[in-house]
Amino acid sequence: MKFKIKKNVLLEALNNVSKALSSKNIIPILSGIKFELFDDKLVLTASDNDITIQSIIKKDDNIEIINTGSIVVKGKYILDIIRKLEGKFINIELFDDYKIMIYTENSEFSLNGIDIKEYPQIDLTLSSDVVSLPVSELKNMIAQTNYATSMDEARIVLTGVNIKIDNKLLECSATDSYRLALKKINLSDSFEKIVDIIIPSKNLGELFKILPSDFDGNVNMYIYNNKVIFGFENIIFQSRLISGNYPNTKNLIPNDILFNLKINRNDFYNMVDRASILNNDKDNNIITLEINDNLLKITSMSLEIGKVEEKMSVNCSENIKISFSSKYMMEALSKIKGDEVVLTFVGEIRPILLKEAEDDSLISLILPIRTY
Amino acid sequence: MKFKIKKNVLLEALNNVSKALSSKNIIPILSGIKFELFDDKLVLTASDNDITIQSIIKKDDNIEIINTGSIVVKGKYILDIIRKLEGKFINIELFDDYKIMIYTENSEFSLNGIDIKEYPQIDLTLSSDVVSLPVSELKNMIAQTNYATSMDEARIVLTGVNIKIDNKLLECSATDSYRLALKKINLSDSFEKIVDIIIPSKNLGELFKILPSDFDGNVNMYIYNNKVIFGFENIIFQSRLISGNYPNTKNLIPNDILFNLKINRNDFYNMVDRASILNNDKDNNIITLEINDNLLKITSMSLEIGKVEEKMSVNCSENIKISFSSKYMMEALSKIKGDEVVLTFVGEIRPILLKEAEDDSLISLILPIRTY
Repeated sequence: MKFKIKKNVLLEALNNVSKALSSKNIIPILSGIKFELFDDKLVLTASDNDITIQSIIKKDDNIEIINTGSIVVKGKYILDIIRKLEGKFINIELFDDYKIMIYTENSEFSLNGIDIKEYPQIDLTLSSDVVSLPVSELKNMIAQTNYATSMDEARIVLTGVNIKIDNKLLECSATDSYRLALKKINLSDSFEKIVDIIIPSKNLGELFKILPSDFDGNVNMYIYNNKVIFGFENIIFQSRLISGNYPNTKNLIPNDILFNLKINRNDFYNMVDRASILNNDKDNNIITLEINDNLLKITSMSLEIGKVEEKMSVNCSENIKISFSSKYMMEALSKIKGDEVVLTFVGEIRPILLKEAEDDSLISLILPIRTY
Repeated sequence: MKFKIKKNVLLEALNNVSKALSSKNIIPILSGIKFELFDDKLVLTASDNDITIQSIIKKDDNIEIINTGSIVVKGKYILDIIRKLEGKFINIELFDDYKIMIYTENSEFSLNGIDIKEYPQIDLTLSSDVVSLPVSELKNMIAQTNYATSMDEARIVLTGVNIKIDNKLLECSATDSYRLALKKINLSDSFEKIVDIIIPSKNLGELFKILPSDFDGNVNMYIYNNKVIFGFENIIFQSRLISGNYPNTKNLIPNDILFNLKINRNDFYNMVDRASILNNDKDNNIITLEINDNLLKITSMSLEIGKVEEKMSVNCSENIKISFSSKYMMEALSKIKGDEVVLTFVGEIRPILLKEAEDDSLISLILPIRTY
C-alpha cells in the first residue's frame, strides 16, 4: 500500500469514520480504522459493532495511488497526525508488513498497524429496499425528533426513534412517555413495503454530526430486518435497529381542542426560561401557565428561594390554568422553526400541542403535570 | 432599599463579584452577594473567605437611588435573573424586611434574602503600602507566570506566585521545581519597602478573569502582612497570601551558556506538538531534540504505538542532544510573544532557557529529563 493524498480530503474522511470509534470499546481492534487501497479508490472503515461508518475516496486529482494494500491503524493517532501535519499533500505507505509510514517533507511518523484479517467482517451490501430523501430533510427530521427519546433503558423501544413508511408518507416519532415529537415527510417516490423500524437515538445523533449541512443531494436509506444503512455523498453509515413494538403514538394526540394560541416563539421561550430560573436545579422544573382576560401569565415558586411571575398580553379571550415542565417546553420550542408558534390547549389536565404557525409537518406534545 | 439600575451595569458588577462565590463553600451565607445601597453608591460584595471581590457602582446616570438599605441575596439566582431579564433598566426593592423584589415591566421576581448582619465582617481598608502598575502589565504578568506553579499541596509555597519588589523592580516568579517562569517589570515609581509575598495561583487566575483587557488605567496593589488587595476601576479584589519562604529561583538560572538558537516560535511549537502526538497520554511526554550540522531534529517513540521524527534546517553549527517534556515546552512557548524565540542551551543535562527575541523581561526555564 502506497499513496499520496490531499490532506484535507483524508482529514474529512477520517473525521467522518472516527465517529464510529468508541473509547470504551472492549474489542481492541475496533479502536482502529481500516484502510483498504484499491486500484481505483481508498476505503476507510470504522465500527463499534453498533454503528459502522465507511468513507470512500475515489481516484481523482486528490489521491495518487502507487500500489494497493490494506492495514488497520489506531484511529486516535492517525486522526491527530493528519490534523497536525503541515503541507497540502501527505504520503502514506506500508513497510515491514504491518507498519505504516506517514510523511511530508519535514515530518515522518511510523505507526504499528494490524493485519485487516483480524478486523471483524462487516457486511455492507446495499439492500434493494431503498428510500431516498434530501439530506437536509433527514438532518432536520433528526434534529426535530431525536431530543424527545427516553434515556431509560427499562423501556428500550423508547430509547430509539421510530420511522414508519407507508407509500409516500414517512412518519418519524420519538417519545419518553411525557412528551412526543412527530414529524411527517412526504417522499417524492412511493415505497412498496410497509416500514416500521426503531433506530437508537445515540446512533442518529452520530449520523446527524456527519450529515453535511451544505449538501443539496439525497440520502439513500437502505432498509433491512435488523439494521439500516444511510448512504450519501461518499459515505455509508450503518446502524443496528432496536427490536420490539413501538407504541402507537398517534393515540396520544387529542382529536378535540379547546383553543389555539398563536404567539411569538422567541418571546414565549424567554418567558419560560426566566420562569424556570428559580427551580432549574430540580428535575421537574414545574411552571404554571395561566390565561385570563387576554393576559398570559407564567408563574413558578420555590418556598426556599422565592417566586417569579411573567406577563404577556395576548389576543385570547379563553381561560386556562395548566402546569408543565419548563425544560420540556423550552426543548420543544427550540426545535420549531419560524417566528410564531401555535399552542393548542385541550384541557387543564390534557396535553399541550405545539406547531409552527406556517407548517404542519412537526407536532410536539407535552403532558401537563398535576400540581395539586 | 429601593433603586433603578441599568441592566448592563449591574450585570457586569455581578459577573465580577460572583467570581468569589464558591459552589462548595461550607458557610451558606457565602453563597450570597451582599448588596449595600448608600446615598451615593451601590456596593456589591462576595467572598469565599479566600478571596473577596467588591464592586462599587457610583451614583450617576446608570443608577437612580430611591432609598438606601442592604440585603444578602443568593448569588447564583440573582445573576441568572439579571442576565435573562429584558429591557434597559431593572427595578430592585426590599419588602417584608428580608425579601427582595426585582422587576421590569413584564417580569417580577421575589427572592428570599438574609440580613447583612449575618454576613462575615471583611476588612477592606486600603493599606498605605501601595504599588501602582498598568492593568495590561499585571494581566500579562499573570498570564506569563501563573501556569508554571505547582499543583502539589505538599510544598505549599510552590502553589503560589512569588512577587518581589525592590525599589523600582518588580520580579514575579512561579515554579513547580521542573520549570520556571520569571517576569520582570520596571515600576514607574520606586517603592520604599522590600516586598516578598506569595499569592495563591488559583486566586490570581480569578483576578486575571476580571482584569479588563480594554482598560488602559492602572491597578493599585495594596500590600499587607497576610493579604493583598488589587484595586482598579470600580473593583476591589482581595486575596490571602501563602505564608512561608519562597525558594530563591534565581539560583536555578545558569550563568554559563553553550549556545543560543533563534527560531520561529510558531514553527517550533508545531514541531513539538506533532512530536508529542504518540505519547500525549502519558504524564511525562518526553521528546528528544538534537542539533547536528545545521539540522534540528525532534524525535519521540513509543514501542507500542510507533515513532515520529520532525526536521528543520537551522543556522547553527553547534551540536546537542537533550530530552524534555513536550507539554512544558509547549506551555512555555505559548506564553512568549513575538514571532521568534531564543532557546539557550547550557548542556545536555542542564536547563533550557527560553526568551522572546526582542524582549528580556520574561525568562522561562525547563529542566531536561534524563532518558538513559
